[in-house]
Amino acid sequence: MRTIETIAGLQEWVREKKDAGLSIGLVPTMGFLHEGHLTLVEAAKKENDAVLMSIFVNPAQFGPNEDFERYPRNMSRDIQLAETAGTDAVFAPTAEEMYPKESAITISAGRLADQLCGKSRPGHFDGVLKVVTKLFHLAQADRAYFGQKDAQQLAIIESWVEDFNFPLDIRRVATVREHDGLAKSSRNVYLSDQERAEAPHLKRALELGKQAVLAGENPVPLMEQHLNANTSGQIDYIQLLSYPELTEDFESEVILALAVQFEKARLIDNLIFNVKGN
Amino acid sequence: MRTIETIAGLQEWVREKKDAGLSIGLVPTMGFLHEGHLTLVEAAKKENDAVLMSIFVNPAQFGPNEDFERYPRNMSRDIQLAETAGTDAVFAPTAEEMYPKESAITISAGRLADQLCGKSRPGHFDGVLKVVTKLFHLAQADRAYFGQKDAQQLAIIESWVEDFNFPLDIRRVATVREHDGLAKSSRNVYLSDQERAEAPHLKRALELGKQAVLAGENPVPLMEQHLNANTSGQIDYIQLLSYPELTEDFESEVILALAVQFEKARLIDNLIFNVKGN
Repeated sequence: MRTIETIAGLQEWVREKKDAGLSIGLVPTMGFLHEGHLTLVEAAKKENDAVLMSIFVNPAQFGPNEDFERYPRNMSRDIQLAETAGTDAVFAPTAEEMYPKESAITISAGRLADQLCGKSRPGHFDGVLKVVTKLFHLAQADRAYFGQKDAQQLAIIESWVEDFNFPLDIRRVATVREHDGLAKSSRNVYLSDQERAEAPHLKRALELGKQAVLAGENPVPLMEQHLNANTSGQIDYIQLLSYPELTEDFESEVILALAVQFEKARLIDNLIFNVKGN
Repeated sequence: MRTIETIAGLQEWVREKKDAGLSIGLVPTMGFLHEGHLTLVEAAKKENDAVLMSIFVNPAQFGPNEDFERYPRNMSRDIQLAETAGTDAVFAPTAEEMYPKESAITISAGRLADQLCGKSRPGHFDGVLKVVTKLFHLAQADRAYFGQKDAQQLAIIESWVEDFNFPLDIRRVATVREHDGLAKSSRNVYLSDQERAEAPHLKRALELGKQAVLAGENPVPLMEQHLNANTSGQIDYIQLLSYPELTEDFESEVILALAVQFEKARLIDNLIFNVKGN
């Protein structure tokens, strides 16, 4: 496996693959890999000749009071895991390499960021769009792989790619969970033992909520009650929206999503399903 | 020459060229072609295996009170001229084809649009970035060709491409002028006979201004005087900025630019030169 730290190095690797007529699958990550990321690699390997994983804790998507500095990192372990999973190259640039200067030009996620996580993380999705735009252009990938756990991110990236005709396909990969239902996340390491024991109730609350939605009821009170009774975290939001449009008008696909703030970790989870029960 | 009206048709043409290992040069235009555009095609032919010209009067870059409706159009003549110049394909979509729905996501040129034409055309350069992003992605071009006459547009597109790592090179092509010095422009047809006779004074004013700059003087009063004495138009702006950064700090490359509003036509022109006289 090749480990690449510079943009020039990445361009050379991409040129090699393109000249050989090989397709490229991109798996963008912030590192501290878990099974969810490796599932993305697996999906990418099935559909592409070469798999590129980026490992970059993107400062542009963290707010000033968020956890950029203490976001968990373990590059040597990540490189080993990526290699074992069959990744062909890892692109792990520094922030200076990715952002040598502040661009005057900005991308705004607009109303798509007014819901769910965007509400409590102003600018977060603009920063996500900034980094994925650069990565998509640099990797010249045929396909890029994202987990459904970050469903709002996925919806926004899907819109960006579709509306602005990026020549690549976005692949949605199902959330990978622990045996007790907790969605895998790099931030799970922040949980205390007690919080870790409580955390499966996020998924439980979503399932209760889904049953309520399918019965034509408002899922929110039931979910709030369940979370408050079973976890020590503070509910940031519980929302039901159309997916991937993220509006309050829905007829078929919806996302039921929540975020809960624990002492050192803010966890998110969601279910995407059809309100007609299909 | 192929004439393509749909995105699917363009994607097919691009796929053909890419599969054959051919390079693509893109010449984005709003049609009503003149020698300036054909010079861009000529430059593109020299460096690429296949030349694609887009002809699209982009509604996103016109303000509500601007000349979108009456912008001059002549598609059959354009297609003839493009073919004679050796263009391989013309992409001429409808607005509905380019913008099937309004995207929630927007691109902002930021401070780069606070100067020159951006000041009196709010949103104009955001609309330019919107359309070129789509065209760059659709054409998957190796190089794109722009005239220096629209120097602010060129500077903004160069920043966008550089800062966001688009995998294509932007080529700057010198302004093509009439024999009397008037910069070629599709909007020149709006000029009355008298205005047409006055219009070469824009270039004259720029040359006087350049001499002043090289002598270490402020060029603006001299240029205002010259334009007011020799044309019936209203000066929109005269500005000296660094190029392509478009700031008021400059040490070497600068742009001296002006815009003059005539009765039905707003004309722009500029000179780019080194303040050190190189």
